[in-house]
Order: sequence, then C-alpha cells, then structure tokens
Amino acid sequence: MDIILHGNAVVGQSGGPTAAINATLAGVIKGVLCEQNKRGNVAIDTLYGMRNGIDGLLREDLVDLSAIFSPEADPEGKNLEALTLTPAAALGSCRRKLPAAGADNEAEVMDQLLDILDRNNIRYFFYIGGNDSMDTVAKLSAYAAKKNYPIRVMGVPKTIDNDLVGTDHTPGFGSAAKYISTTVQEILRDTAVYTVPAVTIVEIMGRDAGWLTASAALGRLVTGREPDLVYLPERKFKYDEFFDDVREALAKHPNVVVAVSEGLECPDGTLVGASTQSGAVDAFGHKYLSGTGKALELAIKAEIGCKVRSVELNLPQRCAGHLLSAQDIEESVATGKAAVDAAVSGVSCRMMTIRRVEGDGYAFETGHEDIFAIANQTKCVPDEFINARGNGVTDECLAYLLPLIKGERYPEYKDGLPAYFTI
Amino acid sequence: MDIILHGNAVVGQSGGPTAAINATLAGVIKGVLCEQNKRGNVAIDTLYGMRNGIDGLLREDLVDLSAIFSPEADPEGKNLEALTLTPAAALGSCRRKLPAAGADNEAEVMDQLLDILDRNNIRYFFYIGGNDSMDTVAKLSAYAAKKNYPIRVMGVPKTIDNDLVGTDHTPGFGSAAKYISTTVQEILRDTAVYTVPAVTIVEIMGRDAGWLTASAALGRLVTGREPDLVYLPERKFKYDEFFDDVREALAKHPNVVVAVSEGLECPDGTLVGASTQSGAVDAFGHKYLSGTGKALELAIKAEIGCKVRSVELNLPQRCAGHLLSAQDIEESVATGKAAVDAAVSGVSCRMMTIRRVEGDGYAFETGHEDIFAIANQTKCVPDEFINARGNGVTDECLAYLLPLIKGERYPEYKDGLPAYFTI
Repeated sequence: MDIILHGNAVVGQSGGPTAAINATLAGVIKGVLCEQNKRGNVAIDTLYGMRNGIDGLLREDLVDLSAIFSPEADPEGKNLEALTLTPAAALGSCRRKLPAAGADNEAEVMDQLLDILDRNNIRYFFYIGGNDSMDTVAKLSAYAAKKNYPIRVMGVPKTIDNDLVGTDHTPGFGSAAKYISTTVQEILRDTAVYTVPAVTIVEIMGRDAGWLTASAALGRLVTGREPDLVYLPERKFKYDEFFDDVREALAKHPNVVVAVSEGLECPDGTLVGASTQSGAVDAFGHKYLSGTGKALELAIKAEIGCKVRSVELNLPQRCAGHLLSAQDIEESVATGKAAVDAAVSGVSCRMMTIRRVEGDGYAFETGHEDIFAIANQTKCVPDEFINARGNGVTDECLAYLLPLIKGERYPEYKDGLPAYFTI
Repeated sequence: MDIILHGNAVVGQSGGPTAAINATLAGVIKGVLCEQNKRGNVAIDTLYGMRNGIDGLLREDLVDLSAIFSPEADPEGKNLEALTLTPAAALGSCRRKLPAAGADNEAEVMDQLLDILDRNNIRYFFYIGGNDSMDTVAKLSAYAAKKNYPIRVMGVPKTIDNDLVGTDHTPGFGSAAKYISTTVQEILRDTAVYTVPAVTIVEIMGRDAGWLTASAALGRLVTGREPDLVYLPERKFKYDEFFDDVREALAKHPNVVVAVSEGLECPDGTLVGASTQSGAVDAFGHKYLSGTGKALELAIKAEIGCKVRSVELNLPQRCAGHLLSAQDIEESVATGKAAVDAAVSGVSCRMMTIRRVEGDGYAFETGHEDIFAIANQTKCVPDEFINARGNGVTDECLAYLLPLIKGERYPEYKDGLPAYFTI
C-alpha cells in the first residue's frame, strides 16, 4: 500500500507552444481540485505554477494557481474553461536542458532545484512538454531519488509533432492537425479558382516526423479534396522524382498543391531548406529550419517555369486557438487530470500516455509509461503509412489520423477577438 | 417610371479569392429568388453563373444556378447557407482584363461577349470583384450602351484589401481583418512564452493600402495586446528608423512583434521585398511580392543580431472560411441582394456600396455609386489613421475597423473538416 505523500504541487510548461498545452494545464488543475474535494486526508495543499518552466523554478518564480482556480476564486469554473481554450503556454515556457548526470554543473543546478522545491514543500512535480521536456523529468526524477528527496515527478506530454514513443498520439497534435487539414482544404479551394497552371507548396512543421504533414491529406476521407503530393521527412527527398511527380500532376489539372515537411532531407543528408535557412541552432542542437517551401518554389520556377508560390503555415499551426479539435481538448484535459490521480496514488517517474481502445469507433484511455524508456526518442511515421513512391500517405495512415481531429471547440469572443486567459 | 426589363441574369466572380465572396454570390441568388417570389410580372427568369468570370462567359461556360438554389432544389435553403459560408470563388475566378475602348481587339472581344449574352437572353449582369473587376463592369457597360444592347450591369465589390473608393469598406475585408487580428493575438501569445530577446515579423497582404496591416493592431481596443510596431505602405519605409524602433521595443520587453504590409517601399521607390521577390508581374502589371517579411528578418539578423523570424500570413488570410466575421457575412449577403433589387428597379452601371449610418453604435446601409467614378482608383489609409512616426495606427483608425470584425460565423463540419459547398 502506498502511504499518502502530503505537500504542495508544482506544474510547469516547456518546449514549443501548442493550442492545447493549457488544456493539459487545466487538466492538472482539475485533478488537484478533485483531490482537494475528497473527504479526509488530502494529499495536495497548494498548486503552484512555475513561470517559464524549469527556468522560472530555478528563480523561484512561482504563481499560486490555487488562488486563481479554487472554488472560492472561480466558483463557476469560468477561469478554468477560458484557460482550457487558450493557446500557447499560459505559464510561459523555456528550452533549458538540465545538466546530464555527471556533468560539472550537475550538483550545483540540481541541488538548487531541490532546495527550492523543499523550501516550498513541493512533493508533486508535473511537467507538460515534448520530447526534450521528458528529458528534464527523467533527470530530476533520477537526481531526487539519488538524494532521497521525496517527490513524485510526472511528465505530461504535449507536442504538435506527435513524435513521442509509448503513446498512441500526443495531446496538442489533434488541434494542430485539424488546423492544418482545414487550412489545406481552404488553400485547395483558393488555388482552384484560376485556370492558369500553378503549383502551390505548403510547408508544414515536423523536423523528423511527418505526422503533421500527413494530416494535410485528411480530406481524402471526407471531402475528396487533398494535395496532389505529400512528402514526409521519413523518406529521402529526390529532386528528379519530385519534378516528375509535379509534371505528372500538372498534366492532370492546372492547380497542383504539394504538402511538404520542413524537415525534408536529400539523399546525401543535406536539408532541402538549407539554402535559405538561418543557420541557427537551438539549445538542443536542432537546426532551425525555415526554407523548405521556398527552396522548392525556386526549384520549380527554375526547372518547370510555371507559376509557383509557397505557403509556410509557420507559427499559426501551433497556436491557432480559434480552431481546436474537441477530441484533442478532451484528451489533453484528461491526461493532465490523470497525471495528478496517478501521482497521488503513488506513481512517479512516468510519462502519461494515451491508448487507443480497440473496438468499433474511436475511444481512448489514459495510461503511463516509464519515462526513461521514452525520453530522447522519436516516433516516426511507419512504413505502412507511406506510399511506395514516397509522395503520399496510405488510407491506413488517414484512418489513424481522422478520429484525432473530430469535433470543434471555439474560444469565447469579446468585441470580435478571442477572450483568451492570462495567468 | 422604369419599364420592367425581362430576361435572364448572369453572375460572375473575379479577382482574388476572399472568405466572403460566396456570401455575396449567395446574396445575388437570394435577390433573384426574392424577385421570382413576387406576384405578377417577374423580371428575372433564370440565374446563370459564369465559370471563371468573364473568361468562362467568353467560352459560354454557364451553370444554371436556379437549378441548384430554387425552392424546389433547395427547399430548406441548406445549399444557400453552405455556399454563404464557403471561402474562395465557388464559380471560379479570372484575372482577364477586357480590351480598352479603341483597342485593336475591342470589337472582336466585346461583340463576342454581347452575342453570348444575347443568345442566352441575358439582361442582368452581376460581377463580384475588386478594383480590376469594376474596370470590367465599366467597359461592358459602356460598350453595351454604345451598341444599344439592353442590359443592366452591376458591380458588387469584394476585396480583402478594402481599397475601393466610394464605399465605407468592402465585403470580404471584415473576415480577413478578423482572421488577421485573431491570428496576431495568437502569435503575440506564442512569442511571449520565451524570455530570450526575439523579433517576429508578421507580413500581411496589401500592395498599396495598409488596411489589413492596420487591423493587426485591433487588440489594443479589446485585449490590450498588440504588435509593438506596425508599418503601412502609405508611408515610405526607412531602414534606419526601423532599426531604432526595434531596438527601442527590445529595450522594453524581450518579445517584439512587428506587423508589416507586403507592399512596403523605400524612399527611392524600391520595394522592401524586392531582394527576394520572384519578379513576376500579373495581367494588370502588378508586381508579385512575396519577400517583405523575409527581407526584414534578414536585415534585423544582420543589424541587430537577435533571434528573429518572419511569418507570412499568405493565402490563409484571404480564404480562411473557418473563422468569419458575422458582420462581414451579413453585409456581403446584403450587398449582393441589394444589387439585384437595384438592377430590377432600373439601376445600371453602378457599384454597390456600404454606408456607415451615423449614430450610436454601428449600423450600415447599402447604396451604389457611379462605376466610372470608382474603377481603377485606390483608397489608402488616411493620414489621421497613421501615427506621426509612421510606425503605428491611431485609436481613430481602430475605432473605424473594430465594428467590421464583430461576431463569429463558422461553417458546418463533417468528420472534423468544414463541409464547404461545391457548385
């Protein structure tokens, strides 16, 4: 039997924004409120938020979330509902990487962290983030265990990229996929109004995994409209095959739409977007890409000579709170809440997961997996989801994706603009 | 007293897509249905749509709209409702310019046009489009009058650019402004999650007029969040002042957002985006811009050296049917319907307009103006709407814009994607 661990909790957000990352935060808050609503021995007293993730925690920059979302402060749950539908980390984010085990500054940084946690009597730590954030959770977990600091550390996934292993999909992906597939439907209609031969390249996020780019093709199952060609980073990109594909598509109809992942690589390993990229590298050593669509636009202009333009979906695809997948929001909240339930019941050092329940129709349940088995891995689109030519996705892929964009959630508006929540 | 002109009607769409151009088409259809619903002497028998505007008409490519939207075909008005909320010209569009009066091919093209109209007994001609489309209406009007061909020709404006004279604003602008202002609110939240100094440039459509770029600042009146800097094409762009402005903004807070128009020009008349533009020119001699945001991104990187990215809102800002201004859709429908009412009552060679009714709150009424006084002119943002420094807009400007983005209209969804209408 687990002994109840008493104390406060802290929650943080990390990595790139998503439109659902605050729905997960709302789920954590909901979980704590439910726990506090129990009769008898309550595990969690106060829920703090760390500003800008682990960066803020190291500055002891904490905000008392209980004071904003408690039944007294938010009797009708309006704050919590508005937070649920607000895009981009409301607590702020960071990209800080904790020192590796054995690094020179490990003890200095990690002891400081444990001091701050101890000073605030924090026994529960929830970290909402992507792959890099799970690395943070794993390191804190391991160091706290080594120092016998009693804390339950849970990772709650969010990433529009859907590239975490151990989970069927990730919270935040469904809303991004819905925004992308909807916007591509609109671009397909926009480009179809003229009869002049033209190619439109739509560049979609995803450095290593093509899940978001694949979702551009979802119209096949619903409206019958989809991009002519879809290129994922799971396949090496060959310019000669690409030009052949585009010429073949142009022979069929004048308005050709191509969806490409930002992370496309040539067979020699160079990035397609390298010629126009900024060359910057983020804290995790990832190259900062921005030029794949533009590079292909210029290549078609030079090789085929037809009208061509590129559209980079850019930041809006990860922060468009004005069009959310109801399914994604439901799962994001559920995953946050389940993380609290699991931690209170004794679970630690795990990443929350979503399992697809077998059967007719779509259903999900939450679970959790060992965080050390998950951190620093990438789940790519599997072979059977990509067609033989490598220029499109299979029906099986779309059948996997479609349930994740179902249903619409919209924020409240005031005077014509979304009334997003500010913590 | 006007004598009733009996015959058929034709409607076409021209120029760039908007999210509300089909709402105006729905208004024209509604106007014809109302006319046909009258007792007694009905003026319009069949309403045809021309595929791809005047291009399709010259190929006699007509679709019988009465057969799709008549009370028999669409008893509950579901087709008409779905069309109303569908983005991008459902009839297709074109960019063809009719020959000028006295041009070598004038008689050939214009006589062919009149032959086709006559063969289909068309006595009413409605053309939904922007500035260039009004030129088409003016030329057809003049030539038909010269040849004593009995026809009433009406221009129904649509342009996201809001740059037509003679009307308070244009149908289609409000929805684009709502999408832009909402998306900028989301970008402001996305960029605010990190603490590293960074500049984000948002490039917005508008070659000659800065109305859409100005709408990026609407948050000032509602949420208190707005871009730090806004540059319109109505002011010459000076790099040295720009760098000073950005440095000053960075001194205040780390996340600087700048909204810029695609059409920014340097004092010597060269386009800011010229260095990365494709160099193409459209049928009307407009330069094809695509590089203003990217040019400024590279300039800041070189001059200031901080993290910087550019976001081009690109096609989605003109075709995002998933987020419409209810006010814009109402006015777009009303303008289309009023065009039919006016034509039936004897009006011809006029462009429909929207007048802002004086008084408390916002109200509008439709009207019409002489098309020859309107075609080929551009209504720019007036001086009093731009601040003295030329890096922002005034409260007066925002007060003009705000009523136009009020209210939300959303399309129906099926299986997670918008159920847009196809003619």
